[in-house]
Amino acid sequence: MYPLKLTRSVVSNPDFPVVQTKAGKIRGLLEEGVFLFRGVQYAKAERYHMPEPVEPWEGTKEAIIYGPVSPEIHTPIAHDEYNVPHYHYIQDEECHYLNIWTKHIDNSVKRPVMVWIHGGGFATGSSIELYAYDGQELADFGDVVVVSLNHRLNVLGYLDLSDYGEEYKYTGNLGQADMVAALQWVHDNIENFGGDPNNVTIMGQSGGGGKVSALLQTPAADGLFHKAVIQSGLGKGRPNFTHEKAAALTDMVVKELGLTKETIKEIEMIPYYKLARAAQKATAEATKAAGSRVSWTPVVDFDYYMGSGMENPFREETKHIPMLVGSLLGEFDQNYNNVLAPGSKNDWDDALVNKLFDEQFGDKAEAVKAAQKKAYPKAKVVDALFTNVGMRIAHRDFCAKRAEEGCAPAYNWLFTLECPFNNGTIPWHNAEEAYMFHNANYLEASYIPGVSEQLQDQMTGAWVAFAETGDPNHPGLPKWDPVKDDNGACMIFDRETRQECHHDDDLMAAIPEKPMSIGTARAPKSTFGGGPRQSI
Amino acid sequence: MYPLKLTRSVVSNPDFPVVQTKAGKIRGLLEEGVFLFRGVQYAKAERYHMPEPVEPWEGTKEAIIYGPVSPEIHTPIAHDEYNVPHYHYIQDEECHYLNIWTKHIDNSVKRPVMVWIHGGGFATGSSIELYAYDGQELADFGDVVVVSLNHRLNVLGYLDLSDYGEEYKYTGNLGQADMVAALQWVHDNIENFGGDPNNVTIMGQSGGGGKVSALLQTPAADGLFHKAVIQSGLGKGRPNFTHEKAAALTDMVVKELGLTKETIKEIEMIPYYKLARAAQKATAEATKAAGSRVSWTPVVDFDYYMGSGMENPFREETKHIPMLVGSLLGEFDQNYNNVLAPGSKNDWDDALVNKLFDEQFGDKAEAVKAAQKKAYPKAKVVDALFTNVGMRIAHRDFCAKRAEEGCAPAYNWLFTLECPFNNGTIPWHNAEEAYMFHNANYLEASYIPGVSEQLQDQMTGAWVAFAETGDPNHPGLPKWDPVKDDNGACMIFDRETRQECHHDDDLMAAIPEKPMSIGTARAPKSTFGGGPRQSI
Repeated sequence: MYPLKLTRSVVSNPDFPVVQTKAGKIRGLLEEGVFLFRGVQYAKAERYHMPEPVEPWEGTKEAIIYGPVSPEIHTPIAHDEYNVPHYHYIQDEECHYLNIWTKHIDNSVKRPVMVWIHGGGFATGSSIELYAYDGQELADFGDVVVVSLNHRLNVLGYLDLSDYGEEYKYTGNLGQADMVAALQWVHDNIENFGGDPNNVTIMGQSGGGGKVSALLQTPAADGLFHKAVIQSGLGKGRPNFTHEKAAALTDMVVKELGLTKETIKEIEMIPYYKLARAAQKATAEATKAAGSRVSWTPVVDFDYYMGSGMENPFREETKHIPMLVGSLLGEFDQNYNNVLAPGSKNDWDDALVNKLFDEQFGDKAEAVKAAQKKAYPKAKVVDALFTNVGMRIAHRDFCAKRAEEGCAPAYNWLFTLECPFNNGTIPWHNAEEAYMFHNANYLEASYIPGVSEQLQDQMTGAWVAFAETGDPNHPGLPKWDPVKDDNGACMIFDRETRQECHHDDDLMAAIPEKPMSIGTARAPKSTFGGGPRQSI
Repeated sequence: MYPLKLTRSVVSNPDFPVVQTKAGKIRGLLEEGVFLFRGVQYAKAERYHMPEPVEPWEGTKEAIIYGPVSPEIHTPIAHDEYNVPHYHYIQDEECHYLNIWTKHIDNSVKRPVMVWIHGGGFATGSSIELYAYDGQELADFGDVVVVSLNHRLNVLGYLDLSDYGEEYKYTGNLGQADMVAALQWVHDNIENFGGDPNNVTIMGQSGGGGKVSALLQTPAADGLFHKAVIQSGLGKGRPNFTHEKAAALTDMVVKELGLTKETIKEIEMIPYYKLARAAQKATAEATKAAGSRVSWTPVVDFDYYMGSGMENPFREETKHIPMLVGSLLGEFDQNYNNVLAPGSKNDWDDALVNKLFDEQFGDKAEAVKAAQKKAYPKAKVVDALFTNVGMRIAHRDFCAKRAEEGCAPAYNWLFTLECPFNNGTIPWHNAEEAYMFHNANYLEASYIPGVSEQLQDQMTGAWVAFAETGDPNHPGLPKWDPVKDDNGACMIFDRETRQECHHDDDLMAAIPEKPMSIGTARAPKSTFGGGPRQSI
């Protein structure tokens, strides 16, 4: 994604670096000591069919540019480009590509493999959507093999057509099956890229965290990964999205397209934009009917996918997987998304702050203030106005449930660094990614000299240690206990990274949960008007 | 576009940096000593209407993220992402935005202003399409004010509806009118960004060079710029694209949309994708009928636009404009686009090279070899297989015609640096941009330690000197004469930058001109198949 400032020629010769994969040879790059392989095809698939292994080839294929990413259901508008810089890329249904960053192309090295699964719900995003996802610094800092992958999204990846024919049996989980195929490719090929196929960590943020959570409950993925990281990927529990619910949504799409059981095969040939329009209409109608948001998501068929561990028992087969699970202080509730008054929150006077507390919390205002002082004695009271509750509780409780059900250690964390943007902004959804990818120096909105360098060393170090051993403790970090026996242990990543226990229980109880405000339109404040998303 | 590795906090406070424009205050960023203002609206426009000044506003608007870019007629496929890394961005018809990089927000400084006009024909591209376009290093190195702009493209910017109503009089040149509006905004506002409104250089590459050429012949732009740079923007002369020709194309679009003179107003409300499909069909049919490519281009109505100076007299009003005009050794003919044999050209043996010369040049093979040795005695003979003729001649002759018609000095240049990509690649269309923007360290395919640093200092230095005084000479460069009295003077930018005279006349005469192979599909060589462009 981001270009490094180079000090050495990038090597990109016809014969070096070249690595043998099961299907054939691929040629990558050597850049500042790290080998890059971009756009490596891990599977092929026809629309609404399961992924299959790639065809073998003669000679050497190039892997020097990224592969296309899955078409998205929305034509996006620019709103959070400053806080979360995006790399918008070329879209195509043929999107089964992964990227590799490694310091070795030697099969004897066997370094830990860290597989990044992107966010964007199950409807948008890609392996290279955000600058923060660039794996070069992480591979270099941690001497690990970093992999990121694209897979089918939205109506392409999660339309449950199983009622329309046996050949469509698992169409409600095709996006998941793509990830499994990518993990299978990693298992079969990563050794030649210096990786250990028996030490694979899957990690993801937001929707990517949801995907990690789902892969734990997916039998087809068993044995293909050994550790798991969830970052801001869990929300309040909600009922399983069963085949029954999925089928109702599918019927709306099929009807909108003018198809029937007899003509369903035509859905494999319809132009994507037409399919997307039908999908948009169906999800909008289903949302209206349900009274809450219906979107594309894995289908809990208790066959391919056993349903999230939040609402279902954790599977015996993945109880041995250690986990690293956490969220951010602000998420979607921070002061940039939620502008309560002009200027910087850090310049507001007491009268204004008190007024805002009264408006937001009513007769609970004093209780929230007291809980905030208890939880974060060195922070400003005003921050409680922008503190996320839903995700924090979900990630905390997920760890506790893992412990209760006798799973391997789960380590809970919370990222609380106030970022310099806007003279002080509570960390937003996505803000921690640059810190665990060791890319903090590249993100304008959050970089703080000295502070960011130390924090990214601590945080990337923890992720790497976890990938190596299943335990995130390392010499640069205070002692970090897994969640167990209701100890409420949580690592706070901030200027003073520290472990706390039950530090924000009162605060979480005092702040009423707000409805999640994903993508609150920021555009009207900028010099362009924003307006509605362009129809597709 | 690209994120710098930061060493200082980026300042982005509610009240700093803030600059007053005619319409209101805007808030930018201060990053590593350079102020950035992204996505500054310079005009507003309804579809198929002339741009108008923006509405004034109260308070301060943010200018910290890029504005939307014009919708493109094609959904692109990835093919040249490695040689020419792209920043694909959000598209919207409301695309009248510019970006500013400057070291000063003080109206007393009056530094030269360099306005970048992007390429992509008149149909695609944006102010931020390529990583090379990032203005931060240029603003810093040259202490100049860098501006880049978006404008309406393709069927939005160049559909000549003048036969359909007086209100559509200049619709065949709306894209040009947008640029004029942007230059007017620069004239009216740039002083507060440290710029000198009386010293504005316009510069562009490929289609951007064509736009610069067109602005010289556009009365509405007179007085808004003072110097001009054309980079790989001129081709073999072709007949004026007159109103008559444009009207025939327009009629095809209108008919395809099912509209008439009576219902033409509806064209202002049709979804863009529908309009684009009609436009694609019309240009394809017109190309078939004409036997040569018909694409969106300014309309020579001898009113708004007087036609390119290649086919028409240079206008008296812009004869005083000094120019910097040049092209690249390979352009679209280099060895990465045109794969004649496996492996690196630099490893081919004499037998193979001789065979390829015979195949390509027949009985002229020996003459081409001799001319190559004369033109580039230190280079490999094989390079003549990949040497561009059409653009080289066009740029050389453009300078000569300026001189013949008594215009201000025109300086001719040629960029010949062999790039390390693929173990030696003749420089491709776009390869010089990183060097005149001082971004050579960020482009993987062309960076050479030591060589790139020196060459970008020379080349950016020349562009900056030219912007300051109209003369590109500076202490880091050998003496550079303008083209005059058939002196054949040309600055060769390479490891050994030097002025030559008539150095390649024989070579240009010996190599038969090839049809231009823009966008030769490279994708089939990579791990993904490429395939046809996705229909929209």
